[in-house]
Parts: sequence; structure tokens; C-alpha cells
Amino acid sequence: MFQNKMPRYEILSEDAMAQLDKGWRRLVTEIGVEFDSEPALELFRAAGQKVEGQTVFLDPEFMLEQIAKAPREFDVQARNPANNVHIGGDSMAFGAVYGPPFVREGPVRRDATMDDFERFTKLAQSFSVLDSAGGVVCEPNDTPLDSRHLDMTYALQTLTDKIYMGNVVTGVNAQDTIAMGEILFGGRAAIEQTPVSISLINCNSPLRWDERMLESLFAYSSANQPVVLTPFILMGAMSPVTIPAALVQQITEALSGITLAQLIRPGCPVIFGSFLSNIDMQSGSPTFGTPESGIGLLCTGQIARSFGLPFRSGGGLTSSQVPDAQAGYEALMTLLPTFLSGANWVMHSAGWLEGGLVAGFEKFIMDVELLQMLRAEFTPLEIDEGSLAFDAHQEVGHGGHFLGAMHTMERFRTCFYRPMLSSSENYERWTRNGSVDAAGRMTKIFHKTLEDYEQPPLDEAVRAELAEYVVRRRAELGD
Amino acid sequence: MFQNKMPRYEILSEDAMAQLDKGWRRLVTEIGVEFDSEPALELFRAAGQKVEGQTVFLDPEFMLEQIAKAPREFDVQARNPANNVHIGGDSMAFGAVYGPPFVREGPVRRDATMDDFERFTKLAQSFSVLDSAGGVVCEPNDTPLDSRHLDMTYALQTLTDKIYMGNVVTGVNAQDTIAMGEILFGGRAAIEQTPVSISLINCNSPLRWDERMLESLFAYSSANQPVVLTPFILMGAMSPVTIPAALVQQITEALSGITLAQLIRPGCPVIFGSFLSNIDMQSGSPTFGTPESGIGLLCTGQIARSFGLPFRSGGGLTSSQVPDAQAGYEALMTLLPTFLSGANWVMHSAGWLEGGLVAGFEKFIMDVELLQMLRAEFTPLEIDEGSLAFDAHQEVGHGGHFLGAMHTMERFRTCFYRPMLSSSENYERWTRNGSVDAAGRMTKIFHKTLEDYEQPPLDEAVRAELAEYVVRRRAELGD
Repeated sequence: MFQNKMPRYEILSEDAMAQLDKGWRRLVTEIGVEFDSEPALELFRAAGQKVEGQTVFLDPEFMLEQIAKAPREFDVQARNPANNVHIGGDSMAFGAVYGPPFVREGPVRRDATMDDFERFTKLAQSFSVLDSAGGVVCEPNDTPLDSRHLDMTYALQTLTDKIYMGNVVTGVNAQDTIAMGEILFGGRAAIEQTPVSISLINCNSPLRWDERMLESLFAYSSANQPVVLTPFILMGAMSPVTIPAALVQQITEALSGITLAQLIRPGCPVIFGSFLSNIDMQSGSPTFGTPESGIGLLCTGQIARSFGLPFRSGGGLTSSQVPDAQAGYEALMTLLPTFLSGANWVMHSAGWLEGGLVAGFEKFIMDVELLQMLRAEFTPLEIDEGSLAFDAHQEVGHGGHFLGAMHTMERFRTCFYRPMLSSSENYERWTRNGSVDAAGRMTKIFHKTLEDYEQPPLDEAVRAELAEYVVRRRAELGD
Repeated sequence: MFQNKMPRYEILSEDAMAQLDKGWRRLVTEIGVEFDSEPALELFRAAGQKVEGQTVFLDPEFMLEQIAKAPREFDVQARNPANNVHIGGDSMAFGAVYGPPFVREGPVRRDATMDDFERFTKLAQSFSVLDSAGGVVCEPNDTPLDSRHLDMTYALQTLTDKIYMGNVVTGVNAQDTIAMGEILFGGRAAIEQTPVSISLINCNSPLRWDERMLESLFAYSSANQPVVLTPFILMGAMSPVTIPAALVQQITEALSGITLAQLIRPGCPVIFGSFLSNIDMQSGSPTFGTPESGIGLLCTGQIARSFGLPFRSGGGLTSSQVPDAQAGYEALMTLLPTFLSGANWVMHSAGWLEGGLVAGFEKFIMDVELLQMLRAEFTPLEIDEGSLAFDAHQEVGHGGHFLGAMHTMERFRTCFYRPMLSSSENYERWTRNGSVDAAGRMTKIFHKTLEDYEQPPLDEAVRAELAEYVVRRRAELGD
């Protein structure tokens, strides 16, 4: 996995940080946060927090005490230890797009299927820049709704040997995900010792946590599985239209969720979540890869670090319908700040299209290229006698060229990033080769990658036990 | 023009800076720099520098003394004072693409013409994010070669009221550009007091300055017109393959040129130039928007600032043939670091395509969108009582939405960047509107912009004098 040893780009002054700090303290104290869950309210009451109806008015100092119990960094184990992930510090881990009900494949946009889910999962397995296929890579609409989480988890566990995300639609789904993790990793104690999944707990912003998400939070935190407490904010709709207000709200929501997680199981691993963009104020449409989301991302990193928490943000976001120029620059307008801010857990890193409604096969390839480029770009320079190349100047002299210099010959294979997708063919060659634009090349690459895919080996007894679990639970769930 | 009040992103440690410093000192002392110009060699000799043949071995301390004479910041006047440009400090000024012999318009790629030149110039005039159309926006191949510079300068002076770049093909061309500046701005004293053009003096890297470029340098520096002393480096060809070596060479070349400029006219305005990318080591093709060029750009800013010099770098560079996804992400992979490093003078900011061989009408629009987005992104947050929006939370409550909140109503028109090109239409609406991708929308926007173009007013006597100058000089030059 990637270690980001470059400096963080921080844009908030000390004074700005102090104002944001005052802001969230006032919100939790005076407006409070709604928790649509009796067990949650009971925990807050028992801890001496003021509860009125479903609204909890939190003491900021109490929250900070709870948050301090969360680990600053932690590991998540994959069934192939080479793919274990470390969350926090300089580590950055990347998962594919999460949640789209539709897919785009070339010119066709349609409902996503289980076959699509499996193909995206195989793509995620194939590229080393991705640490995870994620969770709901796309909604497999052709599988029964109540047992779909079993099919997805089984696919993630068997088609990849990387970490995966847990299902959060209901508490029951979460318990099934945990049970399947126990099967794959050898029991409850093993997964409590080193967790095996990361799960996304979204806030119903503004300032409200819904019942089913909280059921999943209880399940995962009890089992010591990491959760990403994520304010889901499109500024202008789920938060005020000003970025500072959105940041204050985001702190309030994330910290309130993290506080609850620590009440459920002190010391359980959590991630400060952020999903922050804005709407188009003329149409009301969500927009992605915007300047405002870039600023929000940079600020979020700085804020999460100030609380000593690993954070989730970023991805290859775009509003574009197709893998065109807009998709290219919007994805990078999110991904480059993702690296600048050093996000620790990056969802939606590959395949996001059409505001997250679509998982795009071509877009997946584009995003992998961007991740590869950014890994190269965020690798510190090595400056030493050899890299200063004085000898090469002695050899080449004034006005010459370095193509054949010894210094070049020794380094030419590895000196520069070698693109997978980008073309630098000249016009004549590009035309001779069919004038294929980037989108056309993405299609070729994703087909070739799927052809070359090899399923990672898995103990047959374990696989069979997982398959039996899926069959049994599907029957129990009535599907 | 844009003031970048955000922090600079600097990635070189003190130790790294010290090693680069040693590197350029060794290069100028032991390898030296070639100047293919007797007047230049004479100046160096007179100043006590060691000259052997055309190679000058420079004393680093002597160079630093000369460089210290250059202004840290300076103004360039436009014929519309509202378009005056400040070079240096937090100021960032942007010019269009420079030099392409070809143009691309939709599916057609062909030789550039004077009509293309004029249309690009009009586009540059039309967008406020561009401070200049630049100079050779494209090569007008249908005009006579020896007097082409007159046509270009006339077009830049009359179709825009922004600053423009001087022609540098020969010393004669430079003198003509200066003479036309004198006509437009009221004489030699006026343009010496506040310069009116910026000119690009490229090094024939590695470590060699050619005769004709130096003729232009003599002409412009003598007239106190700013010059951009630019190492032209594609790593692997014109420099060693390692970035640190390229940086050391870049310092050596830029500072040697700047030293000469200060010998020509002490105190004349100069810009530390950088054009730094790499070649594909498999094909030998130049590549742009690469991770290596991004790193180089960030380092260049830090280095130029350490010498107290304004610097030129960046742009919307790409190797792509067409305005596709690759063009989108490569352009931004250059432009975002351009803002992170706070480049003071940014050439190739709009229209660059196909490694600089092509000026693209569609690409021009894409780049303007990126510049607009980045200006928004690099505007510091205002954090105050109003932007924290506590009252909006009181109004909306838990789980509500802010679309109709008073705080939103007061701000919705200006709160977010409003895209010119990017679409956030939903699928149904996008399909109903013809499924036009970003490239298709760029075509519509560039046509509309040209339709709406209005020529800025110019005193008829001045215009006539410029036209007469062109006619007279064309005849004298034998075209």
C-alpha cells in the first residue's frame, strides 16, 4: 500500500482552526445531534449527556475524552497478508466506487447486475494501486434484495484476496458480514484481534443518525471492526452553502458518531469520514470535482489530524455522464487534493461516474491511471551524487543530447512513470493506429484486464463453508 | 489579474535545496555555459569571467551579484489599464498557448492560418482569466515568413487590449516588436518606464544559448522589456533522466541567461523560466502532464523564490491528440501544481494540444474552465460569524434541508463556482439534450464566444500608424 511521505498541504490558519473549533462546540451544545436509536440514547444518558426526545446535547469535553480512546492508527487484515492495510499516519488505502445502481460500459448505460459486480471486483483485484474492491461496487439488481449482501460479501471474499467493506443496509446484514469474516479468518477472536472489514456509517445530514445505520454501527463496533463515521454533505442541501459552516457541521457529525462508537466499545477503530461536495444552485443537481469540494477536502485532512484521527475522503468523483474530458479533470480535481491532504482511506477511487449513480468500466481504468500517476508524483525525490548526474554533463557537453548517455542507459527503464492509458503517439502513428481516443483505449484495457484475471487461491473447505452460509442464510431470509 | 493568497506547496527540504545549490555552482564553474554570441562573450570577458571559445565559466558569486540587480516584482502595461499585469509576488498572470504550427477544430487537424491566429486572439480577449493572448498563439502559415511577426503583433495589439508577447525569431523581429510597442504606447521613454511586452528567450538545452535568441535578448533587455530566460528541458533528451539533475541544469541555464540580461542592462526585468517535462523512454516522444513534470514544477517555484526571482512555468499541457479524458487530466496535472507553486507568468494556459504542436479551439475552452475553477479553489476561505451559519442550523434543525433557508437565499447566487463547460445534468435531461459530451460542448462555447466578441476600441490614428508600419516594414523585408 501507499505511504505518502510528501508534505501535507494545509490551508487553514491557526485562527481559522480556532473559529471552527468554537463552531462545533456550539452546535453540539446548543443544537445537539439526533440519534434515531434507543440503545444509543441509553448509552448517552448513562454517560451523563443531556437527552431530549431523540436529540442529544453533548458536552464537547466529554466527546474529546471518548475520541481520545480511539486508536490513531490500526491494521486491517486481508486473507492474503501481502494485502494487509494500515489505516492512519502516512498510509493511504484505496477502494473502488461504492453504491451505484447503474453501470456504463462503452455507449451502454443500464441497471447493474451481479455479473457486473463480479467483473468490477476482478478489476479491483487486478490493479495493485487498489487496496480493496470496496463494498457495494455496484448494486446487483438481478439478485434478491434481502440476501444480496451475502452474494456481494461472498464475491468480495473469493474473487479478491484484499480487504473488503461490510454491508450496512441493516443490522442483520452487518451481522452476516461479520459471521462470514469469522469463517474466512478463523473465528471471532481472530477478527476482533485484527479487523477484516471497514464499514461505512453515513450520517443523515444535517445532524441526524438513522436507526438502521446505527444498528450496523453497533454490530461492527461491538466486533471491533472499523467504521467510517461519515457526514454526507452536499453543501446547499444537507448543510449551509458556506464551506466553513459545512466544515463545522462535518466535525459535529463525525465526532458525535465517533463518540457513540467509543461508548459501544471503548478503543474500537474508527475513521473520521467526509463526503463533502455541493449542489448546483440553479438546478439543485449534485456536483463533483468542484473547487469547493477540493477546498473542503484539504481542510478536512487538517481537521481530522488535529483530533488525532485517521480520515476518509476523496476519490475520483465527477458529475460527467461519460469518461470524457470533464470526467478526467473532475476526477483529478478530487484525487490530487486527496493526495495533498493525505487521506487515509479513500473510497470511490475507481469507477465513479455520473455523480455516483453509475459504475463505469472505462472510468475505472482512467482512475487507476490517475492513482498510478499520483503515487509517482507523491514519491519524494532522491537527491544524491548519482541523481545530480554531473558525469552525464561531462559526457554530453553543451547542446548535445542525453539519450545515449551512460547515466541514461543505467536508468531509462525505471526513471519515469510509464503510462497504461495515456498516449504520446505522434499524429501520424496515432492516426495509423485508428485514431482511438482515451475512452476507446480504456475499453481495450478493461477487456484485456478481465481476460488476464486470475482468481486468488482459497482453501476449498473455507470456500465451501462460506457458500453454505450464503445458501442457509438466503433461505432463512426468505429469498 | 489573479492574486494567489493560498500557501505555496514546497516539497524540497533545506538539505535538498543545499544539494541543488552545490550542483549548479559546480556546473557553471566546471562545465560552463556556451553563448553563441560575440557581444555576449565580450560582456562576460569585460566582467572578468573566464571565456574559452564560446564557453563561459562563471563565478557563482558574480552571478548572484548580477541577479540581485533584477527587480523582484514589476509591472507590464496593457493599452487598457484595467488589464495591466503585475509580475511577481502573489500575482499569477496567464497567457494562451504559444508556438503550434497546427490547429485542431472539432475533428479537423490542419495547418494554422492567420484567420486561426485572429480567432484564438479574440478568444483570449474574451475571457477574463487570461491576461494575454500570448505571442505566437499559432503559426499563421499562410502569411509570408519574414514579415509574419508584424501581422501577429498587429493582431495582438488591435484585437486585444491586454499585454502581449514579443517576437524572438530574430533580433530584427524583436526590434520591430519594440517599435510597434513604441507606436501603441507613445514612444520609447514610455515603454522603458513601464514595459509593454514579455518575451520568451529559450535556452538550447543543455547549457547553450543560440545566436538568434541572444539577439532578441539584447534587443528586449536594452529596451527594458521583460524576458523569460527559459531552459527548454525534456528530461532524458535535453537533460539527464533524473529530476534533481534537471533542476540543477535548469538553475544553471536560467541564472546564466539572467546574468547576461543584467550585464546588458542592469536592473532590467527578467523572469526565471522553466519548461520542464520528460520524454517517453520507449518511444522518445515528449510527454506532458506527467508526474515528473508536476514534481519539477513544484520544485521550480521553491527554487526561483530562493533567488528572489519571479518565475514562469506550468500551463494546460497534454500529449493528447484530442480534447478527451487524457487531455482533461493531463492539463489539470500541470495546472493544479501551477497554482500550488504560485507561478507568476504562465504560458500555454489555454489551447495546448498534442504536445504543443496543435492549438485546439475546443481545448482552449476546457483550459479556461480549469483556470476559472482553480481561481475559485485558490481563494482563501472567509471564516466569520456569517459563514459559520449557526442561524441556519437553528432554522433547519435535524435531518432537514437548507435549500430554502434564509442563509442560503442570501448567498445562493455567488456561493459556488458556476461552471461554463462542466455539466451536472441528470441522465434523462442530458440524453434529451442530445447526449453531448464535454468536447461537443466546448465546440458550442467557442463558437458562441467568437460570435459575441467585440473588438476593444483603439484610437484610429494609432491604429493607422501601426498598419502603416506593418506595410512599410513588410516591403523593406522583401515580402
